[in-house]
Parts: sequence; C-alpha cells; structure tokens
Amino acid sequence: MTDYPAKLQALRAQLAEVSLLRGISAALYWDQATYMPRGGAPVRGQQLAYLTQQSHLRFTDPALGKLLDDLLPYAESLPPDSDDAALIRVTHREYQRATKVPAELVAAISQNASESYHVWTAARPANDFARVQPYLERTLDLSYRYAECFAPYDHIADPLIADSDYGMKAADIKALFAELRAALVPLAQAIADQAPADDTFLHQHYPPEIIERFTTEVIKRFGYDFERGRLDQTAHPFAVRLNGGDVRITTRYPQNTLSDPLFSTLHEAGHAMYEQGIKADYEGTPLASGTSAGVHESQSRLWENVIGRSYPFWEYFYPLLRSLFPQQLEHISLDQFYRAVNKVERSLIRTEADEVTYNLHVMIRFDLELELLEGALRIADLPEAWHARYQADLGVRAPDDRDGVLQDVHWYSGLIGGAFQGYTLGNVLAAQFYAKALAERPAIADAIKQGEFGELHGWLRETIYQHGSKYTAPELIARALGKLDTAPYLSYLRQKYGALYRL
Amino acid sequence: MTDYPAKLQALRAQLAEVSLLRGISAALYWDQATYMPRGGAPVRGQQLAYLTQQSHLRFTDPALGKLLDDLLPYAESLPPDSDDAALIRVTHREYQRATKVPAELVAAISQNASESYHVWTAARPANDFARVQPYLERTLDLSYRYAECFAPYDHIADPLIADSDYGMKAADIKALFAELRAALVPLAQAIADQAPADDTFLHQHYPPEIIERFTTEVIKRFGYDFERGRLDQTAHPFAVRLNGGDVRITTRYPQNTLSDPLFSTLHEAGHAMYEQGIKADYEGTPLASGTSAGVHESQSRLWENVIGRSYPFWEYFYPLLRSLFPQQLEHISLDQFYRAVNKVERSLIRTEADEVTYNLHVMIRFDLELELLEGALRIADLPEAWHARYQADLGVRAPDDRDGVLQDVHWYSGLIGGAFQGYTLGNVLAAQFYAKALAERPAIADAIKQGEFGELHGWLRETIYQHGSKYTAPELIARALGKLDTAPYLSYLRQKYGALYRL
Repeated sequence: MTDYPAKLQALRAQLAEVSLLRGISAALYWDQATYMPRGGAPVRGQQLAYLTQQSHLRFTDPALGKLLDDLLPYAESLPPDSDDAALIRVTHREYQRATKVPAELVAAISQNASESYHVWTAARPANDFARVQPYLERTLDLSYRYAECFAPYDHIADPLIADSDYGMKAADIKALFAELRAALVPLAQAIADQAPADDTFLHQHYPPEIIERFTTEVIKRFGYDFERGRLDQTAHPFAVRLNGGDVRITTRYPQNTLSDPLFSTLHEAGHAMYEQGIKADYEGTPLASGTSAGVHESQSRLWENVIGRSYPFWEYFYPLLRSLFPQQLEHISLDQFYRAVNKVERSLIRTEADEVTYNLHVMIRFDLELELLEGALRIADLPEAWHARYQADLGVRAPDDRDGVLQDVHWYSGLIGGAFQGYTLGNVLAAQFYAKALAERPAIADAIKQGEFGELHGWLRETIYQHGSKYTAPELIARALGKLDTAPYLSYLRQKYGALYRL
Repeated sequence: MTDYPAKLQALRAQLAEVSLLRGISAALYWDQATYMPRGGAPVRGQQLAYLTQQSHLRFTDPALGKLLDDLLPYAESLPPDSDDAALIRVTHREYQRATKVPAELVAAISQNASESYHVWTAARPANDFARVQPYLERTLDLSYRYAECFAPYDHIADPLIADSDYGMKAADIKALFAELRAALVPLAQAIADQAPADDTFLHQHYPPEIIERFTTEVIKRFGYDFERGRLDQTAHPFAVRLNGGDVRITTRYPQNTLSDPLFSTLHEAGHAMYEQGIKADYEGTPLASGTSAGVHESQSRLWENVIGRSYPFWEYFYPLLRSLFPQQLEHISLDQFYRAVNKVERSLIRTEADEVTYNLHVMIRFDLELELLEGALRIADLPEAWHARYQADLGVRAPDDRDGVLQDVHWYSGLIGGAFQGYTLGNVLAAQFYAKALAERPAIADAIKQGEFGELHGWLRETIYQHGSKYTAPELIARALGKLDTAPYLSYLRQKYGALYRL
C-alpha cells in the first residue's frame, strides 16, 4: 500500500523550498521598486532571473510530478473540501502548466522584465517611448513564445489570461465586456451631458506625510495589519506578499492631488488584506496566494470604491480628514467632498478614473493586447494606436506618451496579454460580493458609519481570504455567489450615480 | 594539454552563482535590519539559512575543488600579481577552509544568527538579557563546533579569528594588545587626571533630518557614491555590499546626541568606499570584498577619526554645521567644538568611545570571547563578568545590561570569537596608512582644509580598495607599509592629545 502521509510530507518539503525562493524574489522585487540605488540594477536583474529559474526548476522537477501522480488517487479519496485534497489538486494543475515552459524561457522573461522595468522608471518621466520600445518588442516576442508553449488554444491570449484568471478565455471576456460596454457607454454619456462635479479643491498641495497619517488610520481600521506589513512609496503602487507574515503595500504622492494617494493606498490595502487573511496552514504551498487577478481586484476595488468612495464611509472619516487639512477643506462640505471623489469624467489615467469610465480604460488595453498578440498591431505603432483608441472611446487624447502608452507598469514588468481583464472582473465581483455580504450580515452597513469594518472584514476573510488558492475563481464564485453576474454591479452604479446625477 | 581558459571560465561561472546567492543574502539581511515588519521574521530566518546553505553547498562542490586543483599549476605559471593567479589562489584557500564545515552546521549558524538578532533588537531596549541568553548559549555552542572543524589549532579562537583576520592568531593579538595597553593606560590616566572637555552642547536636540543633510554632504565629498548606495537607519549602524553597484550604509539617531550619528555615518561610509572602490572586474568572484576585518576597519576609522575628528576637517566643515544648527552651536567656537568631539573619558559605549580609550573596550570583549571559548566563563555569568571588567579596566559600571553586555550586535548576529580584534587592528592600521599617504602625497593635508578629499581617496583606492581580497591583509600590509607597526598610531595619539591636554 502506498505511504500517502510520507509522500504528502515529501511534497510539502519540496513546495516549501519553491515557496522560499518565490518569497525571496518578492523581497528583491520590493527592494528594486522602493529603495535600490540605480547602480544595483544590473546584478538585481541577474538575481531575479536566477531565482525565477531556480524556483521553476524545482517546481518542474519530474520527482515532484511523480509525487503528484502518486498522490492523485489519495486526493480523490478525500472529501473534496479537504485542504490536503486541494493542495494536491492545485499543485498538480500548476505543475501541468509550469512543465510546459522551458526554464530558459522563464529566465529570459524574468531578466527582460527586470531590465524593462528599470528603463521604464526613467523613460516614463522623460516621456521617452523610444527608450522602452526595444524592451517592449522583446516582451511581445517573449509573450508569443510563452503562449505557444500551451498550444493548442482558441486564442493566443488564452494561456496568458489563464495565468491570471484561470477558467476564463478571451472569448468569454470579449462577451462580458460587450455586455458591460452596452450599459456603461450610455451611462457615461448621460453623465457627460451634465455639469461636472467641482473637484478643484482636491488639486492643491496636500503634504504627503499628513495624507499618510490619514490613510494609515483608515487601513488600520479596515483591518490591514502593520505588524505584518508596511507602506512605502513607488512610481506605481502595488501590494506584494513576501510571506503570510509580511505583506507590503506601496503608494505614491504626485503633486497637487489628494485622491490619487488616498485611493491608491486603500486599493493596495485591499489586495494586502486578502493575502494577510489566508490560512496560516497554507504557508509554503501554492494555496498561499489569492486565487485570481479578478478575485484579487474585487477585494482592492471593494475597499477602494464600494467602501472608500461611499457616503457612509465619509460620514465617519470626513471630519478627521478636514481636521488634518483645515486650510484645504475649510469651506468644503461633506456633500461637496463626496461628489468630488465620485466625479465622473472622460480622463486619461486608468488608476485615477472614476467607477463609471474605469472599465473603458481596461477595455482599450485588453483590445490592444489582443491586437498585438494577433500580429495586427506593431509595438512601434502602439503609442499612436493608444491615442486613437482614447480619442474614439473616451474623447480625450493624452498630450504625450507619459500619460499614454507609458502610463501603466504592467507591460514593462511582465508579459503582454492577460494583464488587464482582471480589473474589470474585479469591479463586477466587488459589487456582487458586497451585495452578498450585506444580505448575509445587514449590520455591516451601519457599522461603516461608525468607522467599524470588523464585520465586513470577517465576512470577506471567511468567504474569500482564508481559502487562498484552494478554490479556483470559478469554484469560489460558485460557492459564494452562484455565478458571475453583472447585474449587482450595474445596479450599484445606477443607484449611486443616479443619486449624484440626474439620470 | 589542459584547457586552462575553459577551466577558468567554468570556475568563474560557478563562483558567479555563489556570488549571486551571497548578494541576495546581503539584500535580505539589509531588509531585515531596516524595514522588515516584525511578522516577517520567521520566514526571513528560514530564507537566510536556506541561502547560506545553498551558497555553501555550491562553494564546497567537489567539482569546484577539482577545477581548482587543475588550475593551481596554471596559477603558479602566471606572474604572482596576475588577477587570474590571485583568483585561483584566493578561491583555493577559501575552498579549503569552507570544505571543513558541514552544510548543516552552516545552516544552523545562519538560522540561529537570524533569530538571535531579531530577539536582541527587542531585548536590548527592554534591558532583558534573559531573553537572549538561550540564543547566546546556542551561539557559543555553535562557535565551538565551528572552530572544532579546523582542528588542530593553537587556540580554539584561532579559526574564528582567521575568518575575519586571516594570518593572525590569538597569541599574536594578545602580544599586540599587551604592547598597546602598556602605552594607552598611562595616556588615558594622564588625561583623566585633568579637567574633562566640555561637550554638553553636543547633548541636546539635533533634528535627525538636518544631521543627515550634513553627513550626506560630508560623505559625498569623501567620495561615497550615492548612485551605488544609500543611507538608512538601523538599531546598530552597518555597511553592506549587495554588489559593486549597491553598497549601502546605515546609521542611527539616538536622542540628544550629535556625535553618535555623525561619526557612525562617517565610519560606515569608510567601509562602503572600500567596497565601492574594488575593481569592477572582480564582481562575481571571492576577490570582490575587503580583505580582512582589520583592513576594513582601518578604512572606517581613517575616515571617521583620522579625518573626521581632525582640526583641518572642522576648519572647513564647522561653518556649515553651525549654519545648520544656529541655535545649538551659536556660542560654540571651532576650538570648543574640536575639543568636544575629541573628549577623552572612561565611558560605557564602545562605538561612542574616544580614540584613546576605544581599544580598552575592544580588549575587554576580546578577552571575554577567549574566556567563553576556553570554557572559563559561562554565558549566564557574562553580564556580571562584563561589569566587572569595565569596573577594573575603565572604572565605570553600566547601570544595566542594555549598555553592558547587550551593547554590541556582534555576538547576537554571528559567532563568538574573532568579532572584535579587527577594530583595534584597524585603529593601528588607519594611522599607519594615513602616515604613508601623507608621505607619498603631501598635498592631501592642505586639500582637507578645503573640503577636498579626492587625492586621499585616490591614494586609498589605488593602494587598498581596488585590490579587494586579491592580497591577504599581511600581503597587502607588506606591499604598502612593510610591516604592521604601532609606532605611527601611538605617535598620532600622543601628538593629537598632547596638544589637546597637558601631557
């Protein structure tokens, strides 16, 4: 009879090594983005490529595949909800995917990502697309080569999408996006026909250290644990899990804006609370991470928007904010402030976009990714294609590439394909999860007015966070919500913006 | 005929991997000491232990030993000054030493060091020796076991000393220390009989950010390259090489002292300039680090003391410092300031000790290390032994263990033995190197009065920095100075303090 406990222990030991290597990469990535001096870049690139290659080698070790094959019958003998069954099932699926990609390609992708990111951090402020173009061409080439490892596929983007949103295909997303676009375009149009909200007072000097005092207080109340995390500054905000005891977030403080740092911080705290909330037992295994980009984004958007841009939230927090910025907000009422942070406008920057137009930014990027991968668009033509789509879809054109094609970090720090759809999936899911939470725990709504979030955080931890990657996104959605549904999201938007505008 | 170029290339490739792993450890160590949240400690300990074990495994790979054996005849056929010959020679020596230590012991040492350091950072402020005692007992046990790998030896501390100051033995150091003590004790006594310098004005509030503006200006002028480094805060200041393009330093800003952060920063910059000055060709090899603790310390002490506490230095920098602290220094003349930063007193803290008594602090620690290793002293009795020696040698007794046995990071972040003698070797060498530099380039002295250090930095780079570990400390000293000699150091002290006091 097969000694399953011994094999399971051997599996865990090998996975623990992979997890250590990945955690080390995460630490070096964080350092690269926050504090590393310029001179550290060349060796850092080598280190990250080396670590990625090493963890890939260990995760694709045939001995691991053998262990998994041996353990599959054991997994099937366990209750489907068992953690051990999930560990074997999820690891087996990831092993199958990982063994399709040669270690050399993995290393080349990591090395290119690191170099490209470093060049981008200088090229973006210099508005210099030409400097990143060769890196981006290599990125596109590497993205092709990566996707081809998974042939056959319906669409070349499918394998890339599966990496971040397992269970979704380009065709599914196109259909979902078409459905949303049909509702969002008229909504945005109806709002655009009216006088815009006045948010000029948000665009003045707000000292970063005082913004940070406020956001720190807010995210502590949300439930972000600073004993197991920290907040720093980077060009592009992010959350990164080094391990369950160390999940860090970053934000930025551009000049003369309060909303960017404020909502970026709430957003990243949402991602981080998901990671901090995963069962400690899963540490050192593939279960110890959020299950998909879409579900991850649902948590960041829930805390950033559904909570952080809601009226009850500001009923509690606006007095504190005003006391911290007495000069800037002296003559601004709660209602004026609430309208301003929910201003709808056709704008240039995705991360600063309002809830109504945000998904249009995502769809532009998603469509451009598909065109690049289909060979219908060349990297050299990307800056102009970007401008053209913004003109067509949002009626605006960035004055430069800095706020155009150089805007987002994603293509400059990974692959092209699968990078953006998760944002819109997240918006849809955020509304759906929140509606469900309210239905199951009605006390949540009143607690927000008191600045209390324990009930909501508890529901999310129980329903989503604790499971990590135990369930795929479709499985998790099936358990918690039945099925993915745009209705709660569209109803949320219509209700909120119907009250703010005459719709 | 043996294909030496191919073998040399294979050697370099394997060493490059070891170097990557060590550089990663250095980055994680820096993060642990600066910004890591408390919750990150358990996994970080595992990561550091894992990396140390991996780099040890690769560095002790028998295939590497075979390559080295094959290459030794080639090294001997090259001119002794050849970089390739040095690479083979130095790597062979380090390989011989490293293969004596089992990988498991290396990992246990690393894991214990990491845990112990973390406990110490909390135990020191809490004045709680009991909390670190079990870790320190394990450290002593590990130190024994480590030293025993190198049996036979004259003294059990010899292998530990060889790790930091290759070429020196406990007996050599005892003899050198006896010679110094005979000169320093009467000097300290003669000064102690006189009225102490007034340094009360150094002990008031100096805002850290303004101190840092000053120290940043100073170390930039020294030649510390911020494009390849940075300055942060830690409990105990240090310098760490991540790679040649990234050599970081840290300092601390205790309340109500100007001298501690000021001279700590200059000190660590000295270490860092040594590492930044190593030939770029050596990157990825064992040649790419300072050659010994003593030579390293000679560079930190040279910049901190011989330059940073000299009259010509303050002739240039005191006006700037006073302009930054107009209130604190309004009524303080250059002469008063110079006397204050060179105040001699029997004090408790090694890193704040003056140049005359500093070595007495080192000798206490060195002697205690020997007693612990000889089995003549138990860890449980160490706090009281510390107090007793301070009472006997310096006539002072710390009010608690915080400023007693918990004072220095060394025993809490590595092994016991070989940790301290380098400081005194460094003091002796700093004076000797500086005397030599002045003899060869007399313009150095005048340049300092103008705040110019290029000539001195150039001489040090050429004579010391660029060589990295190409030469052992005894070889480097032989090339640059002839032999180690206490005369320049004692003459420097007598001249400087003879002018400051009536001796």
